[in-house]
Amino acid sequence: MQRLNIGLIGGGFMAKAHSLAWVAVPMFFWPAPAIPVRKMIADITLDRAKEAAERFGFEKYTCDWRELVSSPEIDIVDICVPNNLHAEIALEAARMKKHILCEKPLARNVQEAKVMLEAVRQAGVKHMVAYNYRRTPALVYAKKLIDEGRLGKILSFRATYLQDWSASPFAPLSWRFQKEVAGSGTLGDIGSHIIDLALHFVGKIERVCALVRTWISERPLQEDVIDKLGTVKKTEGIRKGKVDVDDEVIALLQFAGGAIGSLEATRNAWGRNNFITVEIHGEKGSLFFNYERSDELQVCFADDPESERGFKTIYTGPAHPYGEGLWPIPALGIGYGETKIIECYDFLRGVVYDEPVSPSFEEGYNIAVVCEAIMKSAESGAWIEVDRE
Amino acid sequence: MQRLNIGLIGGGFMAKAHSLAWVAVPMFFWPAPAIPVRKMIADITLDRAKEAAERFGFEKYTCDWRELVSSPEIDIVDICVPNNLHAEIALEAARMKKHILCEKPLARNVQEAKVMLEAVRQAGVKHMVAYNYRRTPALVYAKKLIDEGRLGKILSFRATYLQDWSASPFAPLSWRFQKEVAGSGTLGDIGSHIIDLALHFVGKIERVCALVRTWISERPLQEDVIDKLGTVKKTEGIRKGKVDVDDEVIALLQFAGGAIGSLEATRNAWGRNNFITVEIHGEKGSLFFNYERSDELQVCFADDPESERGFKTIYTGPAHPYGEGLWPIPALGIGYGETKIIECYDFLRGVVYDEPVSPSFEEGYNIAVVCEAIMKSAESGAWIEVDRE
Amino acid sequence: MQRLNIGLIGGGFMAKAHSLAWVAVPMFFWPAPAIPVRKMIADITLDRAKEAAERFGFEKYTCDWRELVSSPEIDIVDICVPNNLHAEIALEAARMKKHILCEKPLARNVQEAKVMLEAVRQAGVKHMVAYNYRRTPALVYAKKLIDEGRLGKILSFRATYLQDWSASPFAPLSWRFQKEVAGSGTLGDIGSHIIDLALHFVGKIERVCALVRTWISERPLQEDVIDKLGTVKKTEGIRKGKVDVDDEVIALLQFAGGAIGSLEATRNAWGRNNFITVEIHGEKGSLFFNYERSDELQVCFADDPESERGFKTIYTGPAHPYGEGLWPIPALGIGYGETKIIECYDFLRGVVYDEPVSPSFEEGYNIAVVCEAIMKSAESGAWIEVDRE
Amino acid sequence: MQRLNIGLIGGGFMAKAHSLAWVAVPMFFWPAPAIPVRKMIADITLDRAKEAAERFGFEKYTCDWRELVSSPEIDIVDICVPNNLHAEIALEAARMKKHILCEKPLARNVQEAKVMLEAVRQAGVKHMVAYNYRRTPALVYAKKLIDEGRLGKILSFRATYLQDWSASPFAPLSWRFQKEVAGSGTLGDIGSHIIDLALHFVGKIERVCALVRTWISERPLQEDVIDKLGTVKKTEGIRKGKVDVDDEVIALLQFAGGAIGSLEATRNAWGRNNFITVEIHGEKGSLFFNYERSDELQVCFADDPESERGFKTIYTGPAHPYGEGLWPIPALGIGYGETKIIECYDFLRGVVYDEPVSPSFEEGYNIAVVCEAIMKSAESGAWIEVDRE
Repeated sequence: MQRLNIGLIGGGFMAKAHSLAWVAVPMFFWPAPAIPVRKMIADITLDRAKEAAERFGFEKYTCDWRELVSSPEIDIVDICVPNNLHAEIALEAARMKKHILCEKPLARNVQEAKVMLEAVRQAGVKHMVAYNYRRTPALVYAKKLIDEGRLGKILSFRATYLQDWSASPFAPLSWRFQKEVAGSGTLGDIGSHIIDLALHFVGKIERVCALVRTWISERPLQEDVIDKLGTVKKTEGIRKGKVDVDDEVIALLQFAGGAIGSLEATRNAWGRNNFITVEIHGEKGSLFFNYERSDELQVCFADDPESERGFKTIYTGPAHPYGEGLWPIPALGIGYGETKIIECYDFLRGVVYDEPVSPSFEEGYNIAVVCEAIMKSAESGAWIEVDRE
Repeated sequence: MQRLNIGLIGGGFMAKAHSLAWVAVPMFFWPAPAIPVRKMIADITLDRAKEAAERFGFEKYTCDWRELVSSPEIDIVDICVPNNLHAEIALEAARMKKHILCEKPLARNVQEAKVMLEAVRQAGVKHMVAYNYRRTPALVYAKKLIDEGRLGKILSFRATYLQDWSASPFAPLSWRFQKEVAGSGTLGDIGSHIIDLALHFVGKIERVCALVRTWISERPLQEDVIDKLGTVKKTEGIRKGKVDVDDEVIALLQFAGGAIGSLEATRNAWGRNNFITVEIHGEKGSLFFNYERSDELQVCFADDPESERGFKTIYTGPAHPYGEGLWPIPALGIGYGETKIIECYDFLRGVVYDEPVSPSFEEGYNIAVVCEAIMKSAESGAWIEVDRE
Repeated sequence: MQRLNIGLIGGGFMAKAHSLAWVAVPMFFWPAPAIPVRKMIADITLDRAKEAAERFGFEKYTCDWRELVSSPEIDIVDICVPNNLHAEIALEAARMKKHILCEKPLARNVQEAKVMLEAVRQAGVKHMVAYNYRRTPALVYAKKLIDEGRLGKILSFRATYLQDWSASPFAPLSWRFQKEVAGSGTLGDIGSHIIDLALHFVGKIERVCALVRTWISERPLQEDVIDKLGTVKKTEGIRKGKVDVDDEVIALLQFAGGAIGSLEATRNAWGRNNFITVEIHGEKGSLFFNYERSDELQVCFADDPESERGFKTIYTGPAHPYGEGLWPIPALGIGYGETKIIECYDFLRGVVYDEPVSPSFEEGYNIAVVCEAIMKSAESGAWIEVDRE
Repeated sequence: MQRLNIGLIGGGFMAKAHSLAWVAVPMFFWPAPAIPVRKMIADITLDRAKEAAERFGFEKYTCDWRELVSSPEIDIVDICVPNNLHAEIALEAARMKKHILCEKPLARNVQEAKVMLEAVRQAGVKHMVAYNYRRTPALVYAKKLIDEGRLGKILSFRATYLQDWSASPFAPLSWRFQKEVAGSGTLGDIGSHIIDLALHFVGKIERVCALVRTWISERPLQEDVIDKLGTVKKTEGIRKGKVDVDDEVIALLQFAGGAIGSLEATRNAWGRNNFITVEIHGEKGSLFFNYERSDELQVCFADDPESERGFKTIYTGPAHPYGEGLWPIPALGIGYGETKIIECYDFLRGVVYDEPVSPSFEEGYNIAVVCEAIMKSAESGAWIEVDRE
C-alpha cells in the first residue's frame, strides 16, 4: 500500500491531535487511501523537536520548519502552529509543491488568506483548512439531510460557540489574546468554526451586522515560556499585558439564498465548555446539534403526523457517514480525536484519489472575508456586504 | 375577607386561563389579599356570553363590554380580547376608574400604548400587562439571583421564543396574521414576551438592529367563525387571504448598562412548541432557562472550584419565590395555569395593598417602543435608537 | 346543565388540588358532563373548616365528616385525608350511596382495601382512587401507543419514583412516617403510583421479589400541630419519634404476560424531586417518560430506517388525549393541577354517563395486594406470588 | 525512554481500539511510563494477520498466537479475541511470564477465571481486565468523590446497560449468542461492565436475586465468515441457528456495606445504544452518569442551601483525573478511544512502576462470581449468596 510522508510543524495540543489522527487513519478506514508515515516534526528548539518526535512517533525532527518544508521526503505539510506563521509556512510549502493541511483559521486576515489561496492554486497542490467540527458524523449527516431536501428550503440558521476558558480575568495572556499573533480573538479562534458551519449548511452570506466586545482588557502575563490556558497560580502583584482582540461577537446574517440567521461566539460564558450549537429551521423540518453531546443529532420532520411530531435524537453509528470506519455501535463515543481522524482521512483521499477537498483554502479565505465584514460592521455600526471577489 | 369583583372581557383561551387564575388565587395564596369574585363576563354575542358565564363561573354576562366596564359592581377589568380592542376598552375602563389587567401585547403600536398609559396614569388605577412568563418561579428566582449580584455584571443576554404552530402553510388566517387586528405578527405576539424578559433582567435597551421576515404570505381563510389555530381540514381549492405581519424576527440588542444580546422569535420552527429560552452570562456566573422544562433553572457560579463548576439544575419549589403558595414539592409541575395564578395574585396585591405592579402599562409601552424600533430597523437596514420619552 | 354537589373532606395540599380541579373541569372540558358545585367541606375543627370553605370556595362547612357524608345534598364524596381515615369514611359514604373519589393509596393495607371495595360494589356507586400521574397526557398517550400495538409485545418495564424530601434526618416525623396512620412509608405513598403504572401499562404482576429499607429510624417531632414537610428549624436538643415505615423499596417484577421489570421508590434520593420515570421496551419500540419533564414523551419505533431511528421527544398538546380541553399549544405547561382536572373530569364522566372509571377501588385493591407481596418478599427474602382473589 | 513490546492477538474492533490506545499513550501522557512498541500481531490466517499488521502498524505478524506469546521480544500480551480463547492464551502467556491485558469478560465462567487468576499470581506478572468504562474520566471523578466521602454513606446504587443492536430478530448469530464461545450473553458481554462499576463504587456484593430472559431464541446464521453485528441483508428463506445465551438480565443487589441496588442489562432496548447509566444515592449527595453523554457527570450535594440544591452537570477536563493528558478544554470530546488510552496508560504504569493494576484478574474473577450467582438465582428463583473464596 502506498505510503505518504507527513511533515508536521508544531508541538502542542494540535500536534497531539494530528499525530493521533494520521496514525489512526488506516486503523479506522481500511483499506486506507494510503498509509501516512510520521516522517518529520518541527518545533521551536531542537530539544523540544526531539522530544516531540519521540512523543508523537515521528522518525525525524528539526527546529527549522524550512528544512521540513523543503525536504524531498515530505509529501504533506501539516501546519499546527499559531496563526501568525500560517502564511509564511504555507507559501513556502506551496512553492515546494507540498500538499498542505493548515490549522484554522487559515490566516490572521483576508490579505494573508488571499495570498495563501493564490499560492496553493498556482502550485496545484491539495489544500485544506482544519475546521474539524463540521466532520463530526452528526453534522455530516445533518448536511446530507439538508442536501437531500429533507428540511426543505432553509429559513433560518443560528449557531453559538460558547466557552468559558477565558472568562476569568486570571486566565493568562496567551497568544490567542494578541492581535499580532492571532489576528483576532474569539472571532477567528472559535467564531470562524461556526461561520464555516453557516457557509457549509446554508451557503453564501450576503450581509452581516455585528456587535463585538472585549470584556477583559488586560491579562496576567504567562508564568513560563509555554503558552498555557487555565488560570495563573499567583493572583496578587502580577504583571499584566494588554488584550487587543475581541472576547465576544454576536452577528446577524443574511444569506444569499434567502435565509436569515445569527451567530454568537464567546469565551466568557461561565459553564459552557465547547458549546457549539446549530439550529436550522426549514420549510419541511428542523435540526439541532450541540457538540457537548456530539454523538447526537436532533431532527424534526414536518411530515410526521401531528401527534408523533417532535425532535428525534439520533445517535450516529455504522448507519451514518463514516460509520463503517468508526466504532461498531452508536454512542460508543465520537470525540475530538475522531473528528481529526476523519479530517486526515478525507485529506488523504483528496491527495491520493484527486478528490475535491473541503474546506479548502478557498473556503478558509471566504471565512476570513466574513470575519472581516463582521469586524467592519462592529466598527461602523452598519450592515456590511460580504465582498468576496 | 375583602371581595373584589372581576369583570372579564373575552371568551377564548385567555378567558379560560384568567378565570382559573382568579378562582385559584385564594386556594394557593392564603390568606389572600382579597377574594376575587367572578362577577361579570362579556363576549361577542349574548348566547356566547351566557355560555361563557356558565363555563367559567361568572355570575352575570353581557354581550356589551361597555356595560361591564361601566358597571359599578366591577372593581377590576380583565381584558382578554384581540389586540385591536385593548385600547378602546382600557380607555373606557380607566375613565370608569377600574383597575385593569390587560393581555399582552398592550396595544397594536406605540401610539395606542401611549394613550393607554396616559389614561391609566390619569385615572390613578392599577394597571398590568399580562406578560406571564416572567412569573414562572424559575425566572422569578433568576431575577432574584441577578438582583443579588450572584452573576456579577451582566455581559450578554440571549433569548429565543420558537414555536411551530404557524409553520404549515395550512395554518389558517387567524387574526394573529392580520395587522389591522394584531398590530404585528410574531414580534408582538411572542417576541414581546422575550423583550419583556430582556428589559426585566438586563434593563434598558439602547439600540436594536433586526431582520424581519414573512415566510408565508397567504393563508387559508378560517373554516368557521371561531378563530382557530391548527391547520385547516380541507387543503385543496380553498380560499386564501393575505398575511400582512411578520413570521420571524431576529434582533441584536445593545443595553444601556453595557451588555449585548440577541433575540429570535418565530412561529415557523418545526418541533419547537413553546421554546422560550433565556441565557445570561455575567462576570460571576451564567444562567439558562427553557420554558419547555419550566420547573428548572440552570445556574453556574464562577466561584465554584474548577473541578466542581457546571450548570446546576434547580427545580423550583417551596424554597423559591411564591413557593409557599404553590405545590409542596419541587417538580410536581408548574404549568401555564400557575403562571397566571401568580399574575392575578400579584395584581390583587397591587390593588389591595397599593403595591407597585409590574409589568405595568408603562412597561407595556416600553416593550411597544422596542418593537417599533425593531420594525424600523428591519425596514431601514440600520441600527435604531430605542427612543422612549 | 346538570349540577353535581361535591363534598370534600380535608384541608391540606390535596384539598387545594381537588378544589382547583373541580372548579376547572367545565372551564377546560366544555360542554362538561356536569357542573361540579363545591357544596360542603369538612376539616378537623370548625374554625379550620370555615377557613377552608372561604379559601377553597365551598358553600358550607363542617368539622364532622359524617355530617357531610350523610347530607342529602352531596352527590360525590371526595376523600383528601390521611390514609387511616379512608376506610371509615368510604364505608359510610358508600352506605349513603355517594360516589367516591378517594386519595391514594386506597387504604393502609389489603384488608381495609378489600372491605372498601366490597362496600362500593354493594352500594353500586362510582369509585375512583386518585392515582393521578397516569393521567398526565404524555402517559395517556403512551398507553394509547401500547394498546395500538405500536411497541409490539412488551418485554420489559422499569419505573422509578425518586424524591428527596425525607433524605434529611431533620425532616420531621410527618404522619407519612407512622405505620398506624400511613400503613406503609415510601411504598404506599409513592411506590403505589408506579405499581399503578406497571399494572396499567403491562398488566397483571405475577410475582415480586423486593428489598425494603428504612434509612432513618428516628425523626424530630413536628414543631406545631400542622403536619409539615421540609426540615425542622431547630436541630439541637430536639425530641424525636420512631419511624416504623420504609424509606426505600426496590423490587423485581414478573408479569403474567411474560414481561419482566423493576421498580425503585425512595424519598432519600438527593436531587430528585418528583422523578417518576417509566421505561418500556417492546419488540417493536420503546418509550421513556420522566414526570420532571411532564410535557414530554419519548418514543422510539423499531421500523424507522436505521439511520433515522432514535427517541423522538413528543410534547403533548391538542393532538393528544385530552388535548382539546387543555392548552392550545404543546408545552404551555401541563402541571400537577392539570392531572387533577383530568381526573375529576373522568370521574364526572363516569358518574354522569355511567362510564367505567379507572383506577377504581378494585385497581386500588390490586395495588394494595402488590404492595403487600412486596413487603412479604422483603421480610421473607423470597419471591412472593401476587395473590389477588 | 524505555520501550515495551506489545503483542496483540485479534484483528477486529478491539484490535483497532487497542492499537490506537498503545500508540496514543505517549502522545497523551508525557513523559510516558514507557513507549509501547507495536511489535507483533496475531490473527487467524496469515493473510489476515499480514493485513492487520499493516493496518494497525505492527512490525511483525503471525497466524499462530503461540508464536507471539512465546516470543522473547514480547513484554505485554494483549488479548482481543472471543471469550473462549481467553483462558488458553492467558495461561500460556503467564507461563511465558508476559504481562497480560485481557479483554472482558475475563473468561466464560468462574472455573476458567479462577485458573487464569491462579496462573498470573503464580507467574508474578501484571494482569488487567479491560473493563474500560470505569476509566471514563467522569466515572473516575465519581469514584474520587465517593472515596472522599462527598456522598456520605452510600444507600443505593442502580445501573443499566441498554443497547439495541440485537433487538432485531434479523441480527445474525454472532459468537456473542453462543454459549460455547461467549460463556453467556448480555450478562457477560455488557452486564459484567456494570457489575464492575457496582463493585468498584460500592464494594462487595453479598447477595443477588435475578431474572434472566432470552427474547429471541433463533437467529440467522452469519452471511460470511466474518462475525458481524447489524442485521442480515436477506430476510426470507434464511437458515437460522439456536441462541443459547441470555438477552436480558435484571438483578437486585445487596451490598456488604449495607447499600442496596439494581442492575439491568439488555441488548433489546430499541433506541438505547450504549446507555450505561449509574445512579448512586448517599446520605450526603447523589450522582448520575450516562455514558451516552460521557463527558458529563451529574452530582448533587445535600449541604447546598435548599434553594440552590440540584444536580450539577460537570464536564470533565483538565481539572479532573487524567485531565492533564487529555484534551485542554472540557467537552472537546472523550470518546471510546480515550477510555482505552487511559487503560493502556494505567497498565503501563503498573508494569513500569510496579503499581497495583485494577481491574485485575482478581476483580475479573469476582465479576465472574457475581455473574454466576445471577445465573443461579435466575434458575432457582431464589436469592443467592455471592460466594467468593
